[in-house]
Amino acid sequence: MCRWIAYRGETIALEHYVTAPAHSLVEQSRRALEATASTNGDGFGLGWYGEQDDPGIYREVRPAWSDENLHHLCRHIRSHLFFAHVRASTGTPTTRPNCHPFIQGRWMFMHNGQIGAWPLIRRKVEAMIPDALYASRVGTTDSEAVFLAILGAGGADDPVGATLRVISRLAELVHESGTTEPLRFTAALSDGRNLYAFRYADKNNRANTLYFRESGGNLVVASEPVDRQRDSWTEVPPSHVLTARGRDGLRLRPIAVDALIAAE
Amino acid sequence: MCRWIAYRGETIALEHYVTAPAHSLVEQSRRALEATASTNGDGFGLGWYGEQDDPGIYREVRPAWSDENLHHLCRHIRSHLFFAHVRASTGTPTTRPNCHPFIQGRWMFMHNGQIGAWPLIRRKVEAMIPDALYASRVGTTDSEAVFLAILGAGGADDPVGATLRVISRLAELVHESGTTEPLRFTAALSDGRNLYAFRYADKNNRANTLYFRESGGNLVVASEPVDRQRDSWTEVPPSHVLTARGRDGLRLRPIAVDALIAAE
Amino acid sequence: MCRWIAYRGETIALEHYVTAPAHSLVEQSRRALEATASTNGDGFGLGWYGEQDDPGIYREVRPAWSDENLHHLCRHIRSHLFFAHVRASTGTPTTRPNCHPFIQGRWMFMHNGQIGAWPLIRRKVEAMIPDALYASRVGTTDSEAVFLAILGAGGADDPVGATLRVISRLAELVHESGTTEPLRFTAALSDGRNLYAFRYADKNNRANTLYFRESGGNLVVASEPVDRQRDSWTEVPPSHVLTARGRDGLRLRPIAVDALIAAE
Amino acid sequence: MCRWIAYRGETIALEHYVTAPAHSLVEQSRRALEATASTNGDGFGLGWYGEQDDPGIYREVRPAWSDENLHHLCRHIRSHLFFAHVRASTGTPTTRPNCHPFIQGRWMFMHNGQIGAWPLIRRKVEAMIPDALYASRVGTTDSEAVFLAILGAGGADDPVGATLRVISRLAELVHESGTTEPLRFTAALSDGRNLYAFRYADKNNRANTLYFRESGGNLVVASEPVDRQRDSWTEVPPSHVLTARGRDGLRLRPIAVDALIAAE
Repeated sequence: MCRWIAYRGETIALEHYVTAPAHSLVEQSRRALEATASTNGDGFGLGWYGEQDDPGIYREVRPAWSDENLHHLCRHIRSHLFFAHVRASTGTPTTRPNCHPFIQGRWMFMHNGQIGAWPLIRRKVEAMIPDALYASRVGTTDSEAVFLAILGAGGADDPVGATLRVISRLAELVHESGTTEPLRFTAALSDGRNLYAFRYADKNNRANTLYFRESGGNLVVASEPVDRQRDSWTEVPPSHVLTARGRDGLRLRPIAVDALIAAE
Repeated sequence: MCRWIAYRGETIALEHYVTAPAHSLVEQSRRALEATASTNGDGFGLGWYGEQDDPGIYREVRPAWSDENLHHLCRHIRSHLFFAHVRASTGTPTTRPNCHPFIQGRWMFMHNGQIGAWPLIRRKVEAMIPDALYASRVGTTDSEAVFLAILGAGGADDPVGATLRVISRLAELVHESGTTEPLRFTAALSDGRNLYAFRYADKNNRANTLYFRESGGNLVVASEPVDRQRDSWTEVPPSHVLTARGRDGLRLRPIAVDALIAAE
Repeated sequence: MCRWIAYRGETIALEHYVTAPAHSLVEQSRRALEATASTNGDGFGLGWYGEQDDPGIYREVRPAWSDENLHHLCRHIRSHLFFAHVRASTGTPTTRPNCHPFIQGRWMFMHNGQIGAWPLIRRKVEAMIPDALYASRVGTTDSEAVFLAILGAGGADDPVGATLRVISRLAELVHESGTTEPLRFTAALSDGRNLYAFRYADKNNRANTLYFRESGGNLVVASEPVDRQRDSWTEVPPSHVLTARGRDGLRLRPIAVDALIAAE
Repeated sequence: MCRWIAYRGETIALEHYVTAPAHSLVEQSRRALEATASTNGDGFGLGWYGEQDDPGIYREVRPAWSDENLHHLCRHIRSHLFFAHVRASTGTPTTRPNCHPFIQGRWMFMHNGQIGAWPLIRRKVEAMIPDALYASRVGTTDSEAVFLAILGAGGADDPVGATLRVISRLAELVHESGTTEPLRFTAALSDGRNLYAFRYADKNNRANTLYFRESGGNLVVASEPVDRQRDSWTEVPPSHVLTARGRDGLRLRPIAVDALIAAE
């Protein structure tokens, strides 16, 4: 299980959330509090939007806590919308292409979760990636495959709908595999302007934690609070999506994956 | 284009071919003479058989020439059958799982070549990997996919036949893609007892170089000679396979991939 | 604070202690039980003696737990005397030359501890390295400097005496610096035949833990037991040195660093 | 021998010189034209000034040509004054702290050259680093030691004078060592506002190449031209310093190291 943080708001240096706070993401790489894996030392990544349409990324196989470059980059890179992720592998090798976030054109994605029976259903999930995007599969994680599947399902036009369709199909595949392993999906998706954050687990399973804080138009979404002011953080309920689009402000909506499955 | 060496014979320290000679494999990582890419600095790997049935491997993303560990390992590891490979990427990322050799059970494989139009035919090549082996695909190279396809085609029972069937299918796929890019396949395969080395290119294309030297029952096969005694090296002709099995000694035979294709 | 293990006895595969047991050294890299730092993820190293006089080493900046190479090497390398070390940095960068063990000729050394006020006394400790060995200082840790100082103090002829003289001088330097930081020194030293293990802390400070187990002539010394049979492990008392020389068998002796200091 | 580039001018993305041009620095890492080492694959680094007083740095042990992060960072980081460096080691290990540029407070430095007999005179050069800066010595290169010595010699107040004093002392030390190896010093130094570039070799030795181009107030200094418009580049003559300070514009002056040595 991994830890991540997503920010959307005024342009700030990444250090404000990634390296500086008491329980910053880098601190969480050493000692996460609400995760089954207390150490998230299997690589990490940053992704941020600046003046280009497409995001920049920095991914490394070292633990975040010992990477000197990360401190410099977080101090010097400023962004109005960025992701950061520390990884605890569920089995795939620790390589840069297996670290989050993933990018494709102007889209960026990161994930914390588990796709039950992944070795059994991997091929079927990869089959959800359209040919035009298959060359972009440069790693071997479930998360990268899911991201490309979301784009293949129309994510660029309908990010929430496409994500729900993919989750729904994943839930079917996990169920059909006969495994007792869960589907847990806690993810963030962005095109550089809007931010989408999902929290889901299939039935009988506990969704991975997700919190947000909004203040003065600045939104932070995180696996767990990055500072000690826990009162200022609100939990995203299970089976919900948080959206921050244009000037609409924040919306928190239930997602009806089970209904989608039933309807199919 | 990469450079590799395979050894089968008396148990010796790996350094005899990998690090010590005038034009050792590590020296070739800096300055190959018969390759289109003169620098092979995109990772490297060692694989060797010892007292276990399955081989050991050591793979790293650094250039071979600056890896202190490699010098120690080559000085201290002894083997009767080992592979070493320095990589010049044709596009896939420089990660450990993308470095050669690849292993599966007691089988080991490494490759120097090119599969034309790889991005277009990748899915079809991956489809040649049987389900039971698909979880072993931990990287994204063409070479790893081909290795698992060979095992899937019966490589454990009929290594030469299975390899030829896979080459034949690859030639078809490359041809069908409409590309002008070549299929070049210069590879080594072993189960820890026997050694198989292939040199092939589809028609109109020049096969990557391959040489061997046999002396007192010790066989070395290499992309290019590792020392200045060039007279002692024999070229493996294009469209040939070299086999060293049990006590049969060396055999060099033409491979009839075109006939296989025509027969299909 | 780091974790380490040293073995001397019949030739065995390194995996017996490094990767296989319930609380193997690799497991301790994730979750040490008796250390102030529960995660030892700032690089690691192996050193072993084989048929050469000088030892082989393998050192990497990744955490031990995610290094695929380590598993292969521990399964395939066999030795009658080897060291393994997982590192929790006390401030120096995570680079290969800063990982333990350190080697010089046929000597090998590793350390778990702290040299109080290191930034203040570093130059004085480095001044203890003789000119002839200074080119061998390829990293920046206190541990490497101490190792070269021990060799400079006559370690090759009198390993225990030289080590005590260096500890004594370190205790003086730490004391003179005015720091309240401790000197803690828990280290192993070998020339490929004999093994020396030290446990020391200056007054008022608790020495880092050290245990050993001897059975049928096979000796294991470790920062903490590597399996659940805790009854089979004996603690090395503080201010003691354990020696296993030639066929003399094991000796456990108090070390009189304070007396040395007083005598100076 | 390494390759480097320094830029001072309007704020631009680093890619304009580091990754994009025909003979960009990254291309030079593969195939330098005017260097004794045609491959500069022993690590690399970026350093840049942004809104903070102190510069950011990114240093990696991989070759620049295979580092995906480098492409992203050069595309997304913008600066009015930056350094980039690709390294060909003259013997020190390939670690991040041994990669250029080096930083200390708001000062940044990089170097291409050789300090003859370095193993013999290393201690004397390190003795030129004042105590207050010695904790900043986190690597083992000659270049880092020289940088800290320059700051110790008053570099913050008199960058050119302090550098010349240090070069002069280095020339003495190299001469005294009795070596036939040269002192070659081609370096850049900056505080985020002003840029200083030096080209020097001791007598009878050829200084490493250095070029500059100035256009519309934008200055580029580089080991060799980064594009094919060679006419637009001017060679910095041997024994010269190039300065770009405040609004003074460019000055190219001879440096009188020999006179300094004679005067001592």
